[in-house]
Amino acid sequence: MSASEMDRERAARLARERQQQLTKPAGSLGRLEVIAVQLAAIQRNPLPEARPAAALIFAADHPVTAHSVSAYPQEVTRSMLGNLARGGAAAAVLARAVGVPLTVVDVGVAGTPEETVSTPRHPVADHLRGDLRNDDAMSEETAALAMNAGEETVAALESGTRILMLGEIGIGNTTVAAAVAAALLGQEASALVGPGTGVDGKGLQRKIAVVDDALARVARDGPTGPMEILRRLGGPDLAALVGAMRRARTLDMTVLVDGYSVSIAALVACRAEPELREHLVFSHRSAEPGHEIILRELGAEPLLQLGMRLGEATGALTAFPLIEAACLLHAQMATFDEAAVPTALPRTDPR
Amino acid sequence: MSASEMDRERAARLARERQQQLTKPAGSLGRLEVIAVQLAAIQRNPLPEARPAAALIFAADHPVTAHSVSAYPQEVTRSMLGNLARGGAAAAVLARAVGVPLTVVDVGVAGTPEETVSTPRHPVADHLRGDLRNDDAMSEETAALAMNAGEETVAALESGTRILMLGEIGIGNTTVAAAVAAALLGQEASALVGPGTGVDGKGLQRKIAVVDDALARVARDGPTGPMEILRRLGGPDLAALVGAMRRARTLDMTVLVDGYSVSIAALVACRAEPELREHLVFSHRSAEPGHEIILRELGAEPLLQLGMRLGEATGALTAFPLIEAACLLHAQMATFDEAAVPTALPRTDPR
Repeated sequence: MSASEMDRERAARLARERQQQLTKPAGSLGRLEVIAVQLAAIQRNPLPEARPAAALIFAADHPVTAHSVSAYPQEVTRSMLGNLARGGAAAAVLARAVGVPLTVVDVGVAGTPEETVSTPRHPVADHLRGDLRNDDAMSEETAALAMNAGEETVAALESGTRILMLGEIGIGNTTVAAAVAAALLGQEASALVGPGTGVDGKGLQRKIAVVDDALARVARDGPTGPMEILRRLGGPDLAALVGAMRRARTLDMTVLVDGYSVSIAALVACRAEPELREHLVFSHRSAEPGHEIILRELGAEPLLQLGMRLGEATGALTAFPLIEAACLLHAQMATFDEAAVPTALPRTDPR
Repeated sequence: MSASEMDRERAARLARERQQQLTKPAGSLGRLEVIAVQLAAIQRNPLPEARPAAALIFAADHPVTAHSVSAYPQEVTRSMLGNLARGGAAAAVLARAVGVPLTVVDVGVAGTPEETVSTPRHPVADHLRGDLRNDDAMSEETAALAMNAGEETVAALESGTRILMLGEIGIGNTTVAAAVAAALLGQEASALVGPGTGVDGKGLQRKIAVVDDALARVARDGPTGPMEILRRLGGPDLAALVGAMRRARTLDMTVLVDGYSVSIAALVACRAEPELREHLVFSHRSAEPGHEIILRELGAEPLLQLGMRLGEATGALTAFPLIEAACLLHAQMATFDEAAVPTALPRTDPR
């Protein structure tokens, strides 16, 4: 056991002991207690903190949209970058509400940037990418650059950032995410593909058919690892998320995972690096039906179940106050001794 | 239909229309959309607000504790008032975190107030009350005074208060709440009585036996209404909560209901005044097993399920940021027109 692992166990033990001394019946704060202990371990600090916190959204388009898999046209991705920059998108509203800086990174959005919108743009944006059915999603170079974009963006965050909320945006992203998940889990497309932004009927059938074709294409080359599945069936947004998670772990951050697509990036990241799992908190159970399979695979129980399915880190941003509440309760509640509150009666039978 | 009812329906319709125009797939904010529409109706305003908000805790002791139904001694209630006033109790920490004023009202706590703690005290505090098994919980006068304490406290809140978080504190309160619920629903004690602060084994059996005895005593006098059940089996904290809810309705407030005991006060209030139901939002599903029965009876689906069972309005305070997020998203997100974001494609089959 390394010294830093010792620190983690000790911090968690001290946090657990403190929870027993706070002025409340033992265990009565439920999962808020569990989160405080988890964060104590990650931060190697018996009194963990929720701030500084940051939210990151990786944006990309997906050539798979040529197969009419989304209810929205591809141009929506580009115009949503403007909406995010001007503060009118859901994630922008929520980030203001919780007082957390929001960074949007373009890792491959189609079309020409608006002059007035200065979304950081990463070079992978211009690389040729495939439509899943006929071609791999990314070249090896693009996948590496996208992963690197995620790592660098996290490394550039405020020093000592404690909580990292991760999200994505891009028309077609639930299609590529479903393809990655189905390949990783050896499932058919129909188990993982859902309505996304709102396709149904024939649109949903098309989406399933495209993913099944993509799975068959990749399967012909025999078994492959999680990073290669990501490259062939995912997209630069998912690759950037994986890079972001890996760097977050080395910086002792807690990653607050958004919904469907980010959970699938987390599944890839944990398959490649199982130690990452204990750095993750799952913010919400998406209305996207396939999310449940991913959560089960990760042994994850999200904090919220509100029927949300918007992406953009909106689930993570909505759940952030719960993480902050857990930390503040843990740090600021009085102990039984401090408050001179009588503790529980001994368990004897007075009759 | 009265003019004010027309206002409500119109505000809700306008809020629903606005939700369809915001830059997100329709319905993708799930319950946050539903809450915005509910609050629009309550506030008669298509752009409802979450603030001013206030948290109220009613504190009382319960003579039923003489029967050893709690894991904690009765003195804990009094000392927790000090802990709340000094800011070390969970509710005080959470109220600071969300920036909401917290008022604690003593409606019958045993013992002598600490000199340094100035919790508002209501005259019902000194009235003789019964132990449930042998005597009614409250005289008619005490019940009326307690209800009035709740009404007056709400009337004295900041003008225009939008969200009212309600909680209670008092050793023995889950016992009296369970008795009220069992009587209202015609259930046996064992269906409603749970561990509360943490009794189990023989303690839990004692708690069930006391409630069954109390139910049998009241049943001997034949069927009775919700307010009389509250008087005979409840306590002044529950009566104050009912009064607070009734006044909140007349002031167009939304009541954010805490956990087990407050939900049972809500059940009493809704039985007496069914129109109150649409003013309630349920914050969390308590770990107390009987809560599920109450929620089902009220047709309530709480926002959070975190295994909490602390009382003190802690569930309501933890859920408040979700209500605020719902209002801010509704008011501040750009519409498709404002953001010049393309809307969904027409539903035709392009193949």
